[in-house]
Amino acid sequence: MTEPSARLAGGVGDADVVVAVDVGGTGMKCALVSPDGRTVHSERHPTEAARGPEAVVDTILAVAEGLAGKARADGRNPVALGVAVPGIVDEARGVAVWSANIGFRDVPLRDLAVARLGLPTALGHDVRVGGVAEARLGAGRGAGHVLFVAIGTGIAAAHVVDGSADVGAHGAAGEFGHILVRPDGPRCGCGRPGCLEAVASAAAVGRRYAELAGRPATAAEVAERAAAGEPLAARVWQDTVDALADGLATAQALFDVATVVVGGGLAQAGAQLLDPLRAALRQRMTFHREPALVPAALGDEAGCLGAALLALDAVGVPRTVEKR
Amino acid sequence: MTEPSARLAGGVGDADVVVAVDVGGTGMKCALVSPDGRTVHSERHPTEAARGPEAVVDTILAVAEGLAGKARADGRNPVALGVAVPGIVDEARGVAVWSANIGFRDVPLRDLAVARLGLPTALGHDVRVGGVAEARLGAGRGAGHVLFVAIGTGIAAAHVVDGSADVGAHGAAGEFGHILVRPDGPRCGCGRPGCLEAVASAAAVGRRYAELAGRPATAAEVAERAAAGEPLAARVWQDTVDALADGLATAQALFDVATVVVGGGLAQAGAQLLDPLRAALRQRMTFHREPALVPAALGDEAGCLGAALLALDAVGVPRTVEKR
Repeated sequence: MTEPSARLAGGVGDADVVVAVDVGGTGMKCALVSPDGRTVHSERHPTEAARGPEAVVDTILAVAEGLAGKARADGRNPVALGVAVPGIVDEARGVAVWSANIGFRDVPLRDLAVARLGLPTALGHDVRVGGVAEARLGAGRGAGHVLFVAIGTGIAAAHVVDGSADVGAHGAAGEFGHILVRPDGPRCGCGRPGCLEAVASAAAVGRRYAELAGRPATAAEVAERAAAGEPLAARVWQDTVDALADGLATAQALFDVATVVVGGGLAQAGAQLLDPLRAALRQRMTFHREPALVPAALGDEAGCLGAALLALDAVGVPRTVEKR
Repeated sequence: MTEPSARLAGGVGDADVVVAVDVGGTGMKCALVSPDGRTVHSERHPTEAARGPEAVVDTILAVAEGLAGKARADGRNPVALGVAVPGIVDEARGVAVWSANIGFRDVPLRDLAVARLGLPTALGHDVRVGGVAEARLGAGRGAGHVLFVAIGTGIAAAHVVDGSADVGAHGAAGEFGHILVRPDGPRCGCGRPGCLEAVASAAAVGRRYAELAGRPATAAEVAERAAAGEPLAARVWQDTVDALADGLATAQALFDVATVVVGGGLAQAGAQLLDPLRAALRQRMTFHREPALVPAALGDEAGCLGAALLALDAVGVPRTVEKR
């Protein structure tokens, strides 16, 4: 399909696309993405994690195969596959090591995909590739040193330097939800007391309000009530902001980033979260440089775009967004 | 001096050396180091920081000039200079941004050295280059992902991946002493309460014991008394170990390293520190992989060797210690 004259400098043709799949606990975001980071087609599929990890793997591969076929039918050339999954992900070996949501235990997802689709495949961690997408194409563009923080049911982060995320020795870097902020605080799902996730995730906000108010509420409702001036909600919201600021101050001491990009469900509160969080973080900066604190720009597409960028990196496509 | 036939693959001759200077608050460790990381000559000089930063800079340059002259007199060829300083160091621009000990404020040390010595010069942060030396030549050798932690009067760290340290956006990465571990704890020198340095540095150990016992003691004396079974000293020691373990658990959540190398004055307690610290860290690992916890191998030479490695990197000498 692709004539030599139509190929770009890095050996990619202008009809080339990568197949990208971002696997979440409930849904899969899937796309065909061109080498310049543009989504040319997107689909969503349910994960149905309750079927067990083998069935989920089969769905991932079937969906990816379908997207590659769709690309070919449209006259495009699928050159690689990028898959993002949650949990602990060994990107170097292409193995989904562990996932609470989906039940992965040492699944060699990359090799399985290569065997089925015959395409070069990159496996990544959902938050880390989301951070790569925000750093290269989104709210962290041009910053060089970026911390992407996703605050939803859980809390995780990606430290991205010059467009690449820290993976860690075992694929477990960036567990920002499991840093200590409140030694006397509630026990986290991980088993330890005082983790940031146990006091400042969207789930923790709802739980804390319910405990104090005696009636359930989502984090979004707590945010609304706090904005409306309800004292209890305002107190829970401020406690959340303070815990997040403590966590970010710790991360800044270690990473010294230029920009913190805040995404995830809780960030949908917008300025109601970011304005007080910025002020609280500023109070905590002593000799350190304060990072810019900005909302994520790519929404829930970040993981899928990041999976695509990982796939493009894997086949050596030059980055369209340059280093700082 | 150096004939083409005597030059190695990377363009270094076998008579080539780099000049390395590690500037501390009280003393400067200085050396001539060969491309294979061997110290061929070493000197120590007082810093005399009370004279002010300009006089210190002049001493650094005079000492480096003297070492380059000594190398030439010995038939060696000084090819580059590496200087390590404490505080906030912008390695990319070669600027000593800020130092509490020495009073540096935006000193363009690299350019000053180039102007005076005419040698390619690299400026680094003392703990970060020490971490690079431990990762490439010392206790972290072969680990790939290393956290070097220096526990002395203060506490700092270097995150080293494949032999290079994270520097951060403003040269301030690795401030492990200023992560939050005890929100209700004593106020740190930096102005915030609860920093790790305020509860677990050698200075903090001595201070805490003195408060409780009503008589002064050094951290080394507290360690000795704890080993001898004195209940008060044992309690202070255990509190220190617990705070360090909390800090390391936070760092491991974010970095996911293979090996933690512990150096600095407090680490001279050896197994008395590392054995209970290893046990306490293990207790705090839930879904995370436990890093190996090992004592530093290079002692107070780490910073000087690291300055030499930075200089060798700057002139493109191939690493004698390979990536993992």
